[in-house]
Amino acid sequence: MPATVYFAAGPALWDEFAPALRAAFAEAGLDAALTDAAPDPAAVDYIVYAPASPLRDFAPFTRCRAVLNLWAGVERIVGNPTLTQPLCRMVDPALTEGMVEWVTGHVLRHHLGMDAHIVNPGRAWNPVCPPLARERPVTVLGLGELGSACARALAALRFPVTGWSRTPRALPGVTALHGEEGLARALGSAAILVTLLPRTPETENLLDARRIAMLPRGAVVINPGRGALIDDAALLAALDDGRLGHATLDVFRTEPLPPDHPFWAHPRVTVTPHVAADTRPASSARVIAENVRRGEAGEPFLHQVDRARGY
Amino acid sequence: MPATVYFAAGPALWDEFAPALRAAFAEAGLDAALTDAAPDPAAVDYIVYAPASPLRDFAPFTRCRAVLNLWAGVERIVGNPTLTQPLCRMVDPALTEGMVEWVTGHVLRHHLGMDAHIVNPGRAWNPVCPPLARERPVTVLGLGELGSACARALAALRFPVTGWSRTPRALPGVTALHGEEGLARALGSAAILVTLLPRTPETENLLDARRIAMLPRGAVVINPGRGALIDDAALLAALDDGRLGHATLDVFRTEPLPPDHPFWAHPRVTVTPHVAADTRPASSARVIAENVRRGEAGEPFLHQVDRARGY
Repeated sequence: MPATVYFAAGPALWDEFAPALRAAFAEAGLDAALTDAAPDPAAVDYIVYAPASPLRDFAPFTRCRAVLNLWAGVERIVGNPTLTQPLCRMVDPALTEGMVEWVTGHVLRHHLGMDAHIVNPGRAWNPVCPPLARERPVTVLGLGELGSACARALAALRFPVTGWSRTPRALPGVTALHGEEGLARALGSAAILVTLLPRTPETENLLDARRIAMLPRGAVVINPGRGALIDDAALLAALDDGRLGHATLDVFRTEPLPPDHPFWAHPRVTVTPHVAADTRPASSARVIAENVRRGEAGEPFLHQVDRARGY
Repeated sequence: MPATVYFAAGPALWDEFAPALRAAFAEAGLDAALTDAAPDPAAVDYIVYAPASPLRDFAPFTRCRAVLNLWAGVERIVGNPTLTQPLCRMVDPALTEGMVEWVTGHVLRHHLGMDAHIVNPGRAWNPVCPPLARERPVTVLGLGELGSACARALAALRFPVTGWSRTPRALPGVTALHGEEGLARALGSAAILVTLLPRTPETENLLDARRIAMLPRGAVVINPGRGALIDDAALLAALDDGRLGHATLDVFRTEPLPPDHPFWAHPRVTVTPHVAADTRPASSARVIAENVRRGEAGEPFLHQVDRARGY
């Protein structure tokens, strides 16, 4: 009997993901039936999930072996008290690649001072070379899948990279710090700061006025992680008085960012529309298929969420 | 008796380079006397040179063992008929690093479509992710010191990189082509083209109307090499009619780029003020010192120019 895979990620994603999932199931040799029509909950073996899903009550899915999230972030589902099934995050190699490209590109943009050349109505010819990457310390907050990959790519370009994580991590070529004291040091050295932490109760407003004040004067903040990591008002105050040089933000508490939000008009803020990393159907469908295969074979799931940590 | 090193690179560079050269000579244990005052030509052992130098007649420097250029480009000196002494180019590891950073940054800028976010007066929220780097072919024209380093860095970011050189070269992870037929293929596949050829009679106007037409529609041209590599009028025509997507240019036939040059006002052109790579005193002084040491020891010079090739 085929495994029943219920696509509960919402109708907007069905057209894009259904063919990719069916192809990935076939590629993996799986006998799996994919459906988006609300089925008998007690007959569902796996749920494919996304934050936009209307599904909120997991209790009736008594046979379900795993809830497989299409996105890396699980903050909207991990605290759901009806969710007793294993929950797996998406760790899509293509998503990681996209994030590395976006982060590396924007770090280099700020490092090179590109904006002054891209927007130069006065036709100023000011041939001042920037320092070398090896003279520009970059700090990455968060050393999970995405943060580690970005830290490695920046270190390969010779930036002196400091990485910070809640618990100790080691990463070759990166100065790895942890804990509250490590955070103060990681912020204190950051000419450019990249925030790639998951959203948890501990990381909400991690960058508040007190911690922003730990950054060197003129530092640049790049946030492709989660909007809630930063206290927006504290960030704007630090940009207004010149303590921070620039903020490039890809994620926001409300998306799309409302047209009247002060970030849009601020000369020291660049808004990018949540494009730093995207789940791509072909590669993420293979991750889902692999977890269905593991579930059927009784093997441990990939990327299973630790409920206590929240990610 | 100390070797006499005549700093003929011009007064504007003396203050910056003299301390660096003296430190590098000391570090190398050299007995060398550095002077910028026009000395007895027959007493000079080495000449440190730059294009801005007023020195044009090398014939009186009968004892001079080498002319050591502070810059990578030698097109303004290599054809000088009075120059019979060995001529050495600068291959400064810091210059290479700076070039890799500038090229990687601007390739990622165009790859990610950053400009639409940096300049977004309409506050458009358009969350379309770019393709991955591995889906964006980049071609590097020129596989010398700088071109090879840039090709390697781009390949490390997973761009499919094609490199082209006049004569056959092999570079791991890069599709290396050569010759006229290879050039047509290298241009034909380039979503982004980086021009890093030396300026020689063969490379002048290499990118003319015919070769620009070989690029895919919408291709981006990035030129940190030499202004003369590109036929400016042909480039502007291709940008005007949309065959090319953008040109980011760091070098020009006349520098500073005159304020009335059409590049400044063109919406599809970014002008950067010859900042892609700079000779840095500390690291380049070590290269000069090493060549003085080699000259004193009777060893072959580093980076000696082949007059027949012109670089």
